[in-house]
Amino acid sequence: MTDNNKIPVGVLGATGSVGQKFIALLENHPWFKVTGVAASEKSAGKKYKYAVNWILSTPLPEKVADLEVKECEPNLNCKLVFSGLDSSVAGGIEEKFARAGFTVISNSKNHRMDKDVPLLVPEINPAHLELIKTQKFNGGGIVTNPNCSTIGMVLALKPLLDNFGLEAVNVVTMQALSGAGYPGVSSLDSIDNVTPFISGEEEKLMSEPLKIFGTLTSDHIKNIDLKISSQCNRVPVIDGHLECVQIKFKRKTGVDEIKNIWRTFRAEPQKLNLPTAPDKPIHYFEENNYPQPRIHRNVDKGMAVSIGRLREDTLFDYKFVILFHNTVRGAAGGALLCAELMKAKGYFR
Amino acid sequence: MTDNNKIPVGVLGATGSVGQKFIALLENHPWFKVTGVAASEKSAGKKYKYAVNWILSTPLPEKVADLEVKECEPNLNCKLVFSGLDSSVAGGIEEKFARAGFTVISNSKNHRMDKDVPLLVPEINPAHLELIKTQKFNGGGIVTNPNCSTIGMVLALKPLLDNFGLEAVNVVTMQALSGAGYPGVSSLDSIDNVTPFISGEEEKLMSEPLKIFGTLTSDHIKNIDLKISSQCNRVPVIDGHLECVQIKFKRKTGVDEIKNIWRTFRAEPQKLNLPTAPDKPIHYFEENNYPQPRIHRNVDKGMAVSIGRLREDTLFDYKFVILFHNTVRGAAGGALLCAELMKAKGYFR
Amino acid sequence: MTDNNKIPVGVLGATGSVGQKFIALLENHPWFKVTGVAASEKSAGKKYKYAVNWILSTPLPEKVADLEVKECEPNLNCKLVFSGLDSSVAGGIEEKFARAGFTVISNSKNHRMDKDVPLLVPEINPAHLELIKTQKFNGGGIVTNPNCSTIGMVLALKPLLDNFGLEAVNVVTMQALSGAGYPGVSSLDSIDNVTPFISGEEEKLMSEPLKIFGTLTSDHIKNIDLKISSQCNRVPVIDGHLECVQIKFKRKTGVDEIKNIWRTFRAEPQKLNLPTAPDKPIHYFEENNYPQPRIHRNVDKGMAVSIGRLREDTLFDYKFVILFHNTVRGAAGGALLCAELMKAKGYFR
Amino acid sequence: MTDNNKIPVGVLGATGSVGQKFIALLENHPWFKVTGVAASEKSAGKKYKYAVNWILSTPLPEKVADLEVKECEPNLNCKLVFSGLDSSVAGGIEEKFARAGFTVISNSKNHRMDKDVPLLVPEINPAHLELIKTQKFNGGGIVTNPNCSTIGMVLALKPLLDNFGLEAVNVVTMQALSGAGYPGVSSLDSIDNVTPFISGEEEKLMSEPLKIFGTLTSDHIKNIDLKISSQCNRVPVIDGHLECVQIKFKRKTGVDEIKNIWRTFRAEPQKLNLPTAPDKPIHYFEENNYPQPRIHRNVDKGMAVSIGRLREDTLFDYKFVILFHNTVRGAAGGALLCAELMKAKGYFR
Repeated sequence: MTDNNKIPVGVLGATGSVGQKFIALLENHPWFKVTGVAASEKSAGKKYKYAVNWILSTPLPEKVADLEVKECEPNLNCKLVFSGLDSSVAGGIEEKFARAGFTVISNSKNHRMDKDVPLLVPEINPAHLELIKTQKFNGGGIVTNPNCSTIGMVLALKPLLDNFGLEAVNVVTMQALSGAGYPGVSSLDSIDNVTPFISGEEEKLMSEPLKIFGTLTSDHIKNIDLKISSQCNRVPVIDGHLECVQIKFKRKTGVDEIKNIWRTFRAEPQKLNLPTAPDKPIHYFEENNYPQPRIHRNVDKGMAVSIGRLREDTLFDYKFVILFHNTVRGAAGGALLCAELMKAKGYFR
Repeated sequence: MTDNNKIPVGVLGATGSVGQKFIALLENHPWFKVTGVAASEKSAGKKYKYAVNWILSTPLPEKVADLEVKECEPNLNCKLVFSGLDSSVAGGIEEKFARAGFTVISNSKNHRMDKDVPLLVPEINPAHLELIKTQKFNGGGIVTNPNCSTIGMVLALKPLLDNFGLEAVNVVTMQALSGAGYPGVSSLDSIDNVTPFISGEEEKLMSEPLKIFGTLTSDHIKNIDLKISSQCNRVPVIDGHLECVQIKFKRKTGVDEIKNIWRTFRAEPQKLNLPTAPDKPIHYFEENNYPQPRIHRNVDKGMAVSIGRLREDTLFDYKFVILFHNTVRGAAGGALLCAELMKAKGYFR
Repeated sequence: MTDNNKIPVGVLGATGSVGQKFIALLENHPWFKVTGVAASEKSAGKKYKYAVNWILSTPLPEKVADLEVKECEPNLNCKLVFSGLDSSVAGGIEEKFARAGFTVISNSKNHRMDKDVPLLVPEINPAHLELIKTQKFNGGGIVTNPNCSTIGMVLALKPLLDNFGLEAVNVVTMQALSGAGYPGVSSLDSIDNVTPFISGEEEKLMSEPLKIFGTLTSDHIKNIDLKISSQCNRVPVIDGHLECVQIKFKRKTGVDEIKNIWRTFRAEPQKLNLPTAPDKPIHYFEENNYPQPRIHRNVDKGMAVSIGRLREDTLFDYKFVILFHNTVRGAAGGALLCAELMKAKGYFR
Repeated sequence: MTDNNKIPVGVLGATGSVGQKFIALLENHPWFKVTGVAASEKSAGKKYKYAVNWILSTPLPEKVADLEVKECEPNLNCKLVFSGLDSSVAGGIEEKFARAGFTVISNSKNHRMDKDVPLLVPEINPAHLELIKTQKFNGGGIVTNPNCSTIGMVLALKPLLDNFGLEAVNVVTMQALSGAGYPGVSSLDSIDNVTPFISGEEEKLMSEPLKIFGTLTSDHIKNIDLKISSQCNRVPVIDGHLECVQIKFKRKTGVDEIKNIWRTFRAEPQKLNLPTAPDKPIHYFEENNYPQPRIHRNVDKGMAVSIGRLREDTLFDYKFVILFHNTVRGAAGGALLCAELMKAKGYFR
């Protein structure tokens, strides 16, 4: 596809940490091109390169550098926008865009639990996209991406749920600092330290999977019946959420069968060959000290979940460790995959 | 007590990280004075200050600096020795000392599970000391200190066990680097990283509490009946183990009652006013982001356990977070408290 | 001195990071007791324990915990105040207090270069205190403490200047994160990173020593003639500034003579036996990898400068490394020592 | 070039940290393919994937994974070898290979200062390659790569030297942990700490540039006349050496001229379009807090030097900050570029 044929997209909250990641991932995208960047009043009117405090380790894409930052008003020259807005303002702005006919792919928590809004993980519940048709926006719509700590876990659980059924899930997270945005966590709170609390995080991790694994009915998602307990910690790691997971199955199985099911798991994004889809959504490692954030966060373009240490448990059936890139698979990359799924399904004609 | 009246003690493995901590904690101790330091052949014959690579942030005590390091042979000029020996050699050396009439307080794993060896936490099972009388050493004896990750947890659990009974315990640890000794973990494995595996650690954390909470019979400890599951991680923190704990009680209770029981918990070391005993073995914090390693590891001389975030759980009854200094309470300080208990109980006459 | 006889003092900016350090250091002080705490409007009216986000690793002193935070108006119940105010507001508030008759010991940069304000390091220029008599405040006065990166360096240089004369000083700093206050530097900018820039720092380090080493005339300080070049970096260290220093002397000397002069250096605070004074202002270490922030920042209560690696240089005469605690000696502790000097000299009758 | 036409190469010390980096950089190389891996006796005989503790964040190349590790004897099936051997053994082994007809590109210090061995930085002294013809090896030869801390500095200095002449250079380094190999620096020495000493490093940084900038005569390199002083520190950064540099020119110039000369600097590797050559060897940044290790170490494939903060100095003429990837440009990548230069110059016919 030549650049002229690409679908123009906008980024809301473009100067924030998630916004920057959207812009980085959209550079040289085969289907989309960034034509609009919007942010707060403070940034509006400036060239993007002067408005942003670029914090990524890849350079600011040249084509975006000179775009003029707009206010977050629905007059951007495109029909599809990615929202990396802070949840303190995301709710209203995203609705305004949807009402004006934009499709909004949001990384914010505000609309995730709305009855008519899909909480989408393309490998898991692509059918939930249908829900968008029940939305009362005039041609526009809102699709949401789960919280970062949720995405990796549900990806690891999905093939197990399908094959053996799940009764209970227990998870303790060790989450990376980039999940708190920028400037986010103070260095004085993070070096030589761990904080055993992340506001609102445990609640999201206990509720979002129920909707994601839920069943689409005519006008809403019927939650799955599953007990989850979560405990969330912030550790001094730049990128990459590590999670210790314990599970109780409905039907008994064995270690080798589980590993095999993980390794062979492929889903809609792989079948559709979506540009941002990982070749294999799940990578299982046999080394007993794997996965680790610094080594595995970029596996399969940062879009895969790395798993290791599967073993029997004394209180549940099995326990294991998962690792995934929280700002790629867990945020901007995950949202981009949602947009690619919609494009492949013909939503953007 | 004047220096002349103090009990002379030796330190085995004196140049290692635990050995150094023993020497630091014994400086100006009211009852004990270090008169002998023993280490490997390589160090033997040198003055301690030239043999040791001192890594603590308090200065090397002057009285020990000029002691000549001896080989680990039972000819030290004392009857009580603290062992910070590596487990690869600790077993045989400790036995040799015990047979020669020494009392050995060991921080190594080798003899912990021996039928006739107390696995001692003075606040929990002081009566287990009696077991030493069944040992077949000629006047000497071996007393052991649990693994660092175990000590803090059993301290937090002890008053709950006594008051409500325990059915199941689930724990995920985030352990400090100093627990691996020196040089221990490579900086390339720890900065911007977490390792979800510590060799042998999960096994210790699942088995040692059963003996510690066990019942003394005529010639052994009858383990308690309790299900434990553990998962252990190494995080980039210098000192201070953080653990996420979930518990299932035998009898129901409430949040306020638990907090009250923790806050008022006092035991043998407090009653005996042992020099190294914390005033309060357990400190409960109401702040929702406490405890944290860098802030709370030194609470009550590093000998107390800090607890926070007690809340109801969906899968167990309650969950909470504990934090304690792994090389003080969890190693050298805990062992020193064992020796103080023995002295107070008249074992060193 | 009983608590009743102690001099009441106030802390301005009491909830900030320097303010907290003042309160910690003043706990159990033999001469002073904190009776007033003042901060911004936002905090005023609350009890200190509810207004502050306490970040130190020693507990909040109980006597201060329940004091009501006041606004920064000169109606505190004392005559001496320590100012840890941010420089954006310190200038005016400190003047207001001085005009109302308070003695203000300030850690802020605002008045440091004022013609009639002493820039005081008690070991170096105690005579500069006289300057306070030329101030136009009605009984009150302002005394300032140099910038953190300056203090350690001038302490190391002072005995060399006195004995050999200095022609040029070149310094490259590796400064700790706590120097930037709280929340200060983002964790995303500090972990696995160094920032080669600290706003305004290089200028202070090049200009303040000239006044500190200057000569008191009737109504001002005549700067010393000395060329300084500085380069400042922020490294991922919690506390402790490390500085690589090169010097060119006026008179030649040798390594042993320099070490001896450092080790035997004592000054006014040591002669007066001031409570916060280090026994030895300078500690020289022979180990070739010393001093290090984590090991030496607390030497002599955090009030001494640790030096190591003195060796000949190819471009200057000598080079060496210095290390000191930036928030103790370099801020609150240094300011407290100024107040102690004033008390000992009879300024607070 | 198809895989069959590529030049077979071997890696000595293939399991070490530099060896691993060689193997990673050689994956999919257009001219070379790894056909042999050699390491210590301990590893010999095993498949590479079982012998190596892979620490890089890119996966182990599949083609190398199954190669059998050989002992370091000159019977590898190739004529060109890259040596990442430890200096304790590199000297003899490299000579043995050279005598057997191999061309050895070495990253070790052992032969760098040999009279007949080029100390090569392809952008700076490609003509020094001629020196290889004076070597007394039977068809083989040894070419060396400078020490990591040297390479970035000489690249930054080269165009300045050519245009204005250099009289004196003063440098203070803040070096990354990966430069010490694996396991290298203990985490207990690096987190919340800086070590102001790296054994042998300051000497290399003061001597190697003199040879690199020297003049080729018939049978040796005549060193340049230039005074250098260096001070070396180890900071808690994974990859990327930062250096504060001060320079005194022979001819005066201005800031804009210097920046322009840096930005337009191109040399032999760029003209020859060598595969690993950076497009621009030097990137100058105007932001006052740039360059930073985490942000700029990967600029131009990790092969360029990033520079910032050029400003006038009070003691020298100018000062500035440089940053470069120490294991890419400073080690394996730099050595690979040497091999590419030799290939392009026809040395491997």
